[in-house]
Amino acid sequence: MRDIYHDELDEVGKRVLSMTRSITVAMEQASQALLDANLVLAEQVMAEDSKVDAMRTELEDRCFQLVAQQQPVATDLRVVISTIHLAADLERMGDLAIHIAKIARLRYPEHAVPPEAQDVISQMGEVALSLVTKVADVIDGRDIALANAIEAEDDSMDALRRKLFTLVLSSNWARGTEAAIDMTLLGRYYERYADHAVAVARRVIFIVTGERP
Amino acid sequence: MRDIYHDELDEVGKRVLSMTRSITVAMEQASQALLDANLVLAEQVMAEDSKVDAMRTELEDRCFQLVAQQQPVATDLRVVISTIHLAADLERMGDLAIHIAKIARLRYPEHAVPPEAQDVISQMGEVALSLVTKVADVIDGRDIALANAIEAEDDSMDALRRKLFTLVLSSNWARGTEAAIDMTLLGRYYERYADHAVAVARRVIFIVTGERP
Repeated sequence: MRDIYHDELDEVGKRVLSMTRSITVAMEQASQALLDANLVLAEQVMAEDSKVDAMRTELEDRCFQLVAQQQPVATDLRVVISTIHLAADLERMGDLAIHIAKIARLRYPEHAVPPEAQDVISQMGEVALSLVTKVADVIDGRDIALANAIEAEDDSMDALRRKLFTLVLSSNWARGTEAAIDMTLLGRYYERYADHAVAVARRVIFIVTGERP
Repeated sequence: MRDIYHDELDEVGKRVLSMTRSITVAMEQASQALLDANLVLAEQVMAEDSKVDAMRTELEDRCFQLVAQQQPVATDLRVVISTIHLAADLERMGDLAIHIAKIARLRYPEHAVPPEAQDVISQMGEVALSLVTKVADVIDGRDIALANAIEAEDDSMDALRRKLFTLVLSSNWARGTEAAIDMTLLGRYYERYADHAVAVARRVIFIVTGERP
C-alpha cells in the first residue's frame, strides 16, 4: 500500500509542477500581450485557462482520494492538505494572468499601457515571472531559503505598485481616467499574483517545517 | 470514537459560523465607515482582523487534526476538506473588508466616496451584506436553493460595478484621478467579496451533493 501511496504522491507533485509551468507561461504571455498590444497572444492566454482550472479540480480530487484511501498522517497528510491549498493559489494566479490579458484585449488595437507607464508595468511583469519561476523551484526542491527569498521579492512588487500610483497621480498624467483605471487594476493584478506566490512559498515552508511562517 | 468525532465536527461547524459572523460585522462596519467617513469605525474593523486570521488558522488546525486522528471518509471527509476551503474564503472576505476600511481611513477627514457615487457604493455594501448573511444561512442549514440564489445575487454586484465604472468614466466626473482610483479599487474589493461568497456557496453545494456546481 505504501508504495502505491508514494507513487501517487509523486504524481501529485508532478502535476503541481506542471500547473506551475502553465501559469508561468500564462503570465509571460499576458505581460507580453499587454506591452505589445498583441491580440492573438491575449486570446491565447484566455483559451488556455480552462486547462489550468481542470488541473486544479483534478489535483483536488486526487488529494481527496489520497486522504480517503491511504489515510496519511503527519508529514504526508501535511503534504496532501497543503497541495490542495497550493492548487487553489496557482489557479488564482492563472486567473490574474487572464485579467491582465483581458485588459490588453479590451484596448486593442490601442496599447493599454501608455509609453510613460511601460517601464514600470514591464518591471512588474518581470518580477511576477521571477517569482513564479522561484515558486516552481521551491515546490520542486522544497527549498526553504528560496521560499524566504520570495517574500523579499514580493516587497519589490509592492514598491513598483507604489511607483505606478505616483505616476498616475502626478500632475503630468495626461492619459485620462480610463487609462488611470487600467493602471490601477493592472497594479492590483500583478500585486495579487505576487501575493499568491508568497502564499505558495509559505505553504512549502509549512510542509517542510510543520510550522507556519 | 465516532461520538468524539461528531462532537468535534459540530464544534468546527460552530466556529465556521462564528467566523462568518465576524466578517459580516467587518463588512457592515467597513461600509459604514466608508460612507460616513468614520475613522474610529474604520480602525475598529482593522483591529478585529487578527481575530479572523486566528480563527482561520485554528479552523485549519482542527480540520487537520480531525483528518489525522479520525480518518473520516466519504461525506465526512468532504465536510472537513471543504471547511478548510471555506475558512480560506472567509478570511479573504475579512481582508477585503479591511481594504475598504483602509480607503476610508486614507481619505479621512474627507469622504472617500464623492456624493454622486454614494448611492452605488452604498448599494454594493448592501449586496455584500445580503450575500454574507445568506452565506451564514447556507452554511448553517446546508440550504442548496439559497446557495443557488447567492450566485444570482452576485450578478447584481457585477451590474453595480459596471454602473460605478460608467459613472467614473462619464464626462461629468469632476473628482479627478485619485477619486477614480479609489472607486476602481472599492469596486474591485466589493466584487471580490461577492465572488468569495459565491465560492463558499458552491463549496456547500459540493458538501451536500458531492458534485461541483
